[in-house]
Amino acid sequence: MSALTHNEITALLLALGLLLASARILGETAQRLNLPSVLGEILAGILWGPTIFGALAPEWSAFIFPAQGGGALAFDGLTTLAIALFLLVAGLEVDLTTVWRQGRVALWVAIAGMILPFSIGFSVAWWSPEWLGYQPGVPHLPFALFMATILSISALPIIAKILMDLNIYRSDLGVTIIAAAVFNDLLGWLVFAMILGMLGVNQGIPLAHTLWITLVFTASMLTVVPWCIHRLLPWIQAHTSWPGGVLGFAFSFCLMTAAFTEWIGVHAIFGSFLAGVALGHSSHLRERTRATIDQFVSFIFAPLFFASIGLKVNFSEQFDLVLTLTILLLAVTGKVIGSACGGRLGGLVWRDAFAVGFGMSAQGTMGIILGVLALQMGLISHQVFVALVVVALVTSLMSGPLLQRLLGLRKARRFCAHVGAKTFINPLTAYSKDGIIMELATAAAEVVDVDVATISHAVRQRERLMSTGIGRGLAVPHARLPELTEPVVVVGLSHGGVDFDSPDGLPAQVICLILTPVQDDGAQLEILADIASTFKIKEIREKVGGVSNFTEFLALVRSGQGR
Amino acid sequence: MSALTHNEITALLLALGLLLASARILGETAQRLNLPSVLGEILAGILWGPTIFGALAPEWSAFIFPAQGGGALAFDGLTTLAIALFLLVAGLEVDLTTVWRQGRVALWVAIAGMILPFSIGFSVAWWSPEWLGYQPGVPHLPFALFMATILSISALPIIAKILMDLNIYRSDLGVTIIAAAVFNDLLGWLVFAMILGMLGVNQGIPLAHTLWITLVFTASMLTVVPWCIHRLLPWIQAHTSWPGGVLGFAFSFCLMTAAFTEWIGVHAIFGSFLAGVALGHSSHLRERTRATIDQFVSFIFAPLFFASIGLKVNFSEQFDLVLTLTILLLAVTGKVIGSACGGRLGGLVWRDAFAVGFGMSAQGTMGIILGVLALQMGLISHQVFVALVVVALVTSLMSGPLLQRLLGLRKARRFCAHVGAKTFINPLTAYSKDGIIMELATAAAEVVDVDVATISHAVRQRERLMSTGIGRGLAVPHARLPELTEPVVVVGLSHGGVDFDSPDGLPAQVICLILTPVQDDGAQLEILADIASTFKIKEIREKVGGVSNFTEFLALVRSGQGR
Repeated sequence: MSALTHNEITALLLALGLLLASARILGETAQRLNLPSVLGEILAGILWGPTIFGALAPEWSAFIFPAQGGGALAFDGLTTLAIALFLLVAGLEVDLTTVWRQGRVALWVAIAGMILPFSIGFSVAWWSPEWLGYQPGVPHLPFALFMATILSISALPIIAKILMDLNIYRSDLGVTIIAAAVFNDLLGWLVFAMILGMLGVNQGIPLAHTLWITLVFTASMLTVVPWCIHRLLPWIQAHTSWPGGVLGFAFSFCLMTAAFTEWIGVHAIFGSFLAGVALGHSSHLRERTRATIDQFVSFIFAPLFFASIGLKVNFSEQFDLVLTLTILLLAVTGKVIGSACGGRLGGLVWRDAFAVGFGMSAQGTMGIILGVLALQMGLISHQVFVALVVVALVTSLMSGPLLQRLLGLRKARRFCAHVGAKTFINPLTAYSKDGIIMELATAAAEVVDVDVATISHAVRQRERLMSTGIGRGLAVPHARLPELTEPVVVVGLSHGGVDFDSPDGLPAQVICLILTPVQDDGAQLEILADIASTFKIKEIREKVGGVSNFTEFLALVRSGQGR
Repeated sequence: MSALTHNEITALLLALGLLLASARILGETAQRLNLPSVLGEILAGILWGPTIFGALAPEWSAFIFPAQGGGALAFDGLTTLAIALFLLVAGLEVDLTTVWRQGRVALWVAIAGMILPFSIGFSVAWWSPEWLGYQPGVPHLPFALFMATILSISALPIIAKILMDLNIYRSDLGVTIIAAAVFNDLLGWLVFAMILGMLGVNQGIPLAHTLWITLVFTASMLTVVPWCIHRLLPWIQAHTSWPGGVLGFAFSFCLMTAAFTEWIGVHAIFGSFLAGVALGHSSHLRERTRATIDQFVSFIFAPLFFASIGLKVNFSEQFDLVLTLTILLLAVTGKVIGSACGGRLGGLVWRDAFAVGFGMSAQGTMGIILGVLALQMGLISHQVFVALVVVALVTSLMSGPLLQRLLGLRKARRFCAHVGAKTFINPLTAYSKDGIIMELATAAAEVVDVDVATISHAVRQRERLMSTGIGRGLAVPHARLPELTEPVVVVGLSHGGVDFDSPDGLPAQVICLILTPVQDDGAQLEILADIASTFKIKEIREKVGGVSNFTEFLALVRSGQGR
């Protein structure tokens, strides 16, 4: 039986460990800078790949990330599995009922947003293929179809993430964008499946067969199969251990549909995406099962896959600015104008129609995944691949800010973003409300240019109107100060507890002083709401008394975000 | 860059899907029969391996589970990863403080329980190696050391599972057994690491170096590293997204320590086991993070690994009864007598000392893992491998029942084990307490040989003593009946609610009638407690009104077990 050698195992484990660690670190850094984490993950791969580490230490690089041999094959198997599982999660996010609900507008957006960039992409790739980096010898029709598809595809997971960040995921506009993106995704994958069929990746199955099998399979995965799964899941949960039964079912179902689509000649990930759609449709799939799958895949497998992209190509050598800009221009104009026209035809006002267009323009992960497949099949050159990755990243980076600017939105504020080590007091020593306010105001005065008396006066005045003890041991004295430009929050822990006239009569043990500018753009309200909802979590309330420093406090409070 | 072919990907995904599905199904079946799930998982592999499927359909088998080529290498890489992650979870279960707390007895048990079987195993393997299936040409000293180690190793995860099932995991005796097993595991792995060093698996590093690096590494993973991790975790949780930061850290740490131990010449899984021990020691690692890791590994990776064992060998052709019985005899007598003597020396009475011995005799997963490694290195023949797997399974199967018999223990009863489709009434139609009791008694009378009047009379009499409405919409009328031999539970849902004089004044909507034999061995109390704790979970209380049949009810109630 073929087995990996001792050195191959060492290298494989080391490669996985290094890639995962750096992908997570750079992914977190990207998020901190309000960029999509996929950017940091790909960057991690570029660092370890031929672009940087491979150029600096070619021998080490050849040992840890071998291009040939057993280790490379095992690594390839793992990334194939990783991307199949990532598409399972992407499929789980698709809500079919949403698509039908916002159906009319979404359909217009999806169709117009697909047809325009597809036609533009196809025309250019057909009549001026050299503009898009066409290599002689590559079959022309599949190449043109591929470039057309990649210019017209959207990235459902990225779009969902952007809309959630902007807090408009559940709004009408958000639902329209998501529904259009779902439709767009399904359509895009179907076209891509046909390209693969044309290339005869499947050995022996004629193209016509691949096509009709794909259509029948897709149709049943959207209708009959979800119906069966919805009926099967309660039975599985009743008769197997929880959550092992459901997890095992979800994964083996995903793997088998992936094997099936790979076998008929369209790619494995099309099958796992549809498996996710079919599974996610059932309301019997519990939130916690979804969360377990999602966490594992998003934080372990997805970073590994995206990091592996950077390993494939030398990004500095193969970067072609003109090519990248051409593709970027075609991708953005076609997608934005097409989708906006679709939205207008569906009855939206122009502003909303363009918002939809900007929302749909994020190519993100899907563009990259299709690029990887095309590269593997020799359909595109390394230059085109690098250009596609860059375009996917740039469109993902632009989409959020453009949408935000156009609609005048912002991200939801979190209170802990305004607390620092200097504005965290543990323990508070005063016994009275006024004493506590003075203590908190003193800490606040150290970080802003306002004197203690002004702060405490403003807070006490507000307090006189109505007490800010809101119960469950929490009090939120607050004030607006004309001198401020940014909100400041001071958190103090009183171990004995201080009476803040709470409705439930309990003494306050966590006191958060919130100071905001006069023109605060809703910051005070948002911070108040965030504090209240954070301390609504029983575990956080119980454990907050035990934290010994600011870092532990932050760790505790942020753990509530995952719920 | 080496990549898997279209056919290899199809086969790999199909193989994973089939193995996972059948391993989960047979694993669940085994659990249903009160057997360890690992038995079912290995059986799934035997079904798909050369023993059965390979013999029936050799061509299909060669396609799906190839022994050579890229697919086989990718599969090998995946199972290597799977077993490394499984050992991470096994390590997480080790509680170092437990070991120190029950230190003295545990140390005696661990040492005596290691020395006796080790000496027996070594003596036999050294002087009569042919009894243990020694093949000429294999280095004799490593072979003897390996057989001695495998006869003296315990399986921490299996032992922990058995003790939890018997509800004595937190008792003094349970803690002693666990502590001894932890010690035993560490010692066993250390010896095994030395054997690997002797075999010169590491190319270039001399044996002496491997030995002292292993010792220094182990010592630091048990002392300095846990200390650092305990200080690092709050920082990670404070400054990264949750739970992505911690998960990423845990896995990349595990992968890198695994790569390190593989590199120095002891196996990767020794590193990931110690990584688990070091991580698990920190109280900052949240329960939910542990649960996410544990669920994913136990339900996805572990089944895949154990199923892959069955693929390696033809279990019917290579089965040698005499060899198996010899190894079994040596393993059990050495381990039980050694550990029992250790326990006695540590101050236990003989009964408890033998209980410890039986507890320690489960070789389970560890025996199998060591067997796989030894087979890969050509240290043992296929016959010995099959014998080791069988011995590991038999000892795991015996350990629980023997312990149970000796201590007169039983498993905790669950109320849903006594409810059937016939004894689930939805909705109840009566409006009064007496009417409801009559309705429930009627259903009970259908499944037991007692008439309705007798049942309802007994229940009403009990009800007159004190009402059985226990609040939160739950009522538990109950009675002991001399006619019964087994407990019977009838569950009825009243959508309008019926007054049961609950302390909180709320009408009862879930009414569970509990009928037990007069000599019920505590069954009534256990079932009552189980019902109360099940419906203490808010989600279950809220959703129970919406279930439409018995299967959905069972699914809901069992989902509470995972919490």
